[in-house]
Amino acid sequence: LLFVKTLNQNRDENDDMRLQNNLAGRKLLFTPGPLNTSSAVRTAMTRDLGSRDSEFTEVTQAVEKHLRTVAQAGSEVAVVLLQGSGTFAVEAMIGSLLPRPSRVLVLVNGAYGERIVRIAERIGLSVEIQRSSPTQAINPRDVARALDRDETIQSVVMVHGETTTGLVNDLEAVATIARQRGRNLFVDAMSTFGGIPFSVSELGLAGLAASSNKCLEGAPGISFVFAQRRIIECCQGRSHSVSLDLFEQMRQFDSNGQWRFTPPTHVMAALATALVQLDIEGGVPARMRRHQANRAAIVAGFRDLEFDTLIEDGVQGSVIVTFKIPAWTNFRIEELYCDLADQNIHLYPGKLTEEPTFRVGCIGDINCNDIGRMLSAVERYLRRIGRLKDIRRSAV
Amino acid sequence: LLFVKTLNQNRDENDDMRLQNNLAGRKLLFTPGPLNTSSAVRTAMTRDLGSRDSEFTEVTQAVEKHLRTVAQAGSEVAVVLLQGSGTFAVEAMIGSLLPRPSRVLVLVNGAYGERIVRIAERIGLSVEIQRSSPTQAINPRDVARALDRDETIQSVVMVHGETTTGLVNDLEAVATIARQRGRNLFVDAMSTFGGIPFSVSELGLAGLAASSNKCLEGAPGISFVFAQRRIIECCQGRSHSVSLDLFEQMRQFDSNGQWRFTPPTHVMAALATALVQLDIEGGVPARMRRHQANRAAIVAGFRDLEFDTLIEDGVQGSVIVTFKIPAWTNFRIEELYCDLADQNIHLYPGKLTEEPTFRVGCIGDINCNDIGRMLSAVERYLRRIGRLKDIRRSAV
Repeated sequence: LLFVKTLNQNRDENDDMRLQNNLAGRKLLFTPGPLNTSSAVRTAMTRDLGSRDSEFTEVTQAVEKHLRTVAQAGSEVAVVLLQGSGTFAVEAMIGSLLPRPSRVLVLVNGAYGERIVRIAERIGLSVEIQRSSPTQAINPRDVARALDRDETIQSVVMVHGETTTGLVNDLEAVATIARQRGRNLFVDAMSTFGGIPFSVSELGLAGLAASSNKCLEGAPGISFVFAQRRIIECCQGRSHSVSLDLFEQMRQFDSNGQWRFTPPTHVMAALATALVQLDIEGGVPARMRRHQANRAAIVAGFRDLEFDTLIEDGVQGSVIVTFKIPAWTNFRIEELYCDLADQNIHLYPGKLTEEPTFRVGCIGDINCNDIGRMLSAVERYLRRIGRLKDIRRSAV
Repeated sequence: LLFVKTLNQNRDENDDMRLQNNLAGRKLLFTPGPLNTSSAVRTAMTRDLGSRDSEFTEVTQAVEKHLRTVAQAGSEVAVVLLQGSGTFAVEAMIGSLLPRPSRVLVLVNGAYGERIVRIAERIGLSVEIQRSSPTQAINPRDVARALDRDETIQSVVMVHGETTTGLVNDLEAVATIARQRGRNLFVDAMSTFGGIPFSVSELGLAGLAASSNKCLEGAPGISFVFAQRRIIECCQGRSHSVSLDLFEQMRQFDSNGQWRFTPPTHVMAALATALVQLDIEGGVPARMRRHQANRAAIVAGFRDLEFDTLIEDGVQGSVIVTFKIPAWTNFRIEELYCDLADQNIHLYPGKLTEEPTFRVGCIGDINCNDIGRMLSAVERYLRRIGRLKDIRRSAV
């Protein structure tokens, strides 16, 4: 009975918090995207633009220009926008740019690497898979060995930041190995583009795919591919798909600046605004520092509550952090999700099959107050289940 | 000099109008989508939702339920949402549901029919093309003859409303012919879904693809496919594409109500709102009457200014009307587009290769005042080029 009473007291406390949040109407998304966008980004979506109207063509051109700056892309690189989620861009990149038949090495240390394997196999590539532990960065020496062992491998595909865990692979090392051996490297940079500085041109990447709604902090619905012009210009008729044909998509943009098929105009306006805000913030290095600060606060707060991170700090990116689900008495991760969701605070489930985990996103329009509120909500839950009694905590 | 002076006077008049419109900030989109959305639809986009959060799952379920109502779809029909433009859904439908190898009859009387041919050929179907005039509805008897001539044809694909011209083909007649002959009919209903009442179940359609941003009057970025369950359930592994695989997409929705890949959350919230508004308006019959009223005002107004429509009234749909570009002295269609665009009024270019045309959309959140404003702007242009002097006009 005492337990029920305590529970009810806590419920009341939670009710107040819930009311405040519902009044605010704002959800705190500790997720890897869709994420909290800024009010400027959301306001940009409240205007209807015609897809063939010159104002929208200017929006498209502005987005392309900003994306090229973010990618540090020279004139030898084309950027091609595409409708749909990031996976659409990854599939468009692989399906439009890799010759068939040809042999490709796919580096896999997470669910997004596995997805690339599925795409490559579906479109009929000869696939060599190099799998490694999801808690370890891809070993560049293994890549070198695989390429030296099999000279028929023309292309390598890898994920830069694995959202599965939040781990960031060593893009520069793999790019160097591929370049030295004359192989084309294609990168899924969904979770790092705009959040980690690198140059598509300097790395000599053959292709790179990313999307609007992660480190760029736009709304979801747009993805894009950077491609070496010398490669994409030879790819007419190669794509397995009409909708995902990057060559035709590029040709349409080049001919009159318009999209080949109806673009998500509101999402594009949001992306244009998000890119201006990235610029104002100080570009990718400043964005990275903010995400890192968020990550530091989140990791410190959870460690303070005695949660353990899954991967080593040295390879931990700043998009999302994976925590192990503890085996504490009464601790139920679904209960924690629901409890926080009732307060408009959203954590993200784990994606590993090997180990029970949950994830906490560090990106988007969230600040230290928001992180504090989230950690306090977790703490209240832990008190309610009787976990937190004696733990001495630093101030959040 | 007099001409320049007159021009400048008219420029001043236009400047006032331009100022008014710019202050309002609203563009009038006489286009077939992206179109003017209601303020409720735009407001729905100003909230960030997590893609795995229960509120968003409810949004997805509500959209599915409303779409089924619009389609008059029984339990034997599945609805599968997809990221991207309408073409993505058409390709997903054809690529996921048609067996390979197999022979398909594609009925073509416009650019969207030609696009279906490109998709069918790209994915390796054996394609029989039945082309007919873009200014005439597809002749159902020709379809019957083609099917009777070649028994190896398993499937038929057609466009219901050809946005190329605004012409509406006789879906019921073709569906009856296909059904009687035991062939599967797949329909691109982009420009009619939500704007013309029909029942996917009663017509016995094998599949139907449409999108969020035409007669449903949502924002662009979402498309969807209705499919006979008995067909789609046999299609595991058939799709040429991972991203456009309707079987896997359906399986994910069925398993936990969530999207397989990141959905455009803001566009989904907009679509949910647009579907509620369709319901409040009185459903598809009421929506059709409103679009028809807009079309009547537009056609009457342009005819009054001595423009001619391209196709016969009997086959003219209510999404978009095609007008012939007149050969009048000084009349330049690009000048008219730009003149109106400067006043935030957007007409739509023609898409026919045979004949110079322009198009005027009748859908979206536009009213009689807006149509009057557009017609007045056209009239002012015609006066300026010296065309309108003696024409007696009825009040707009």
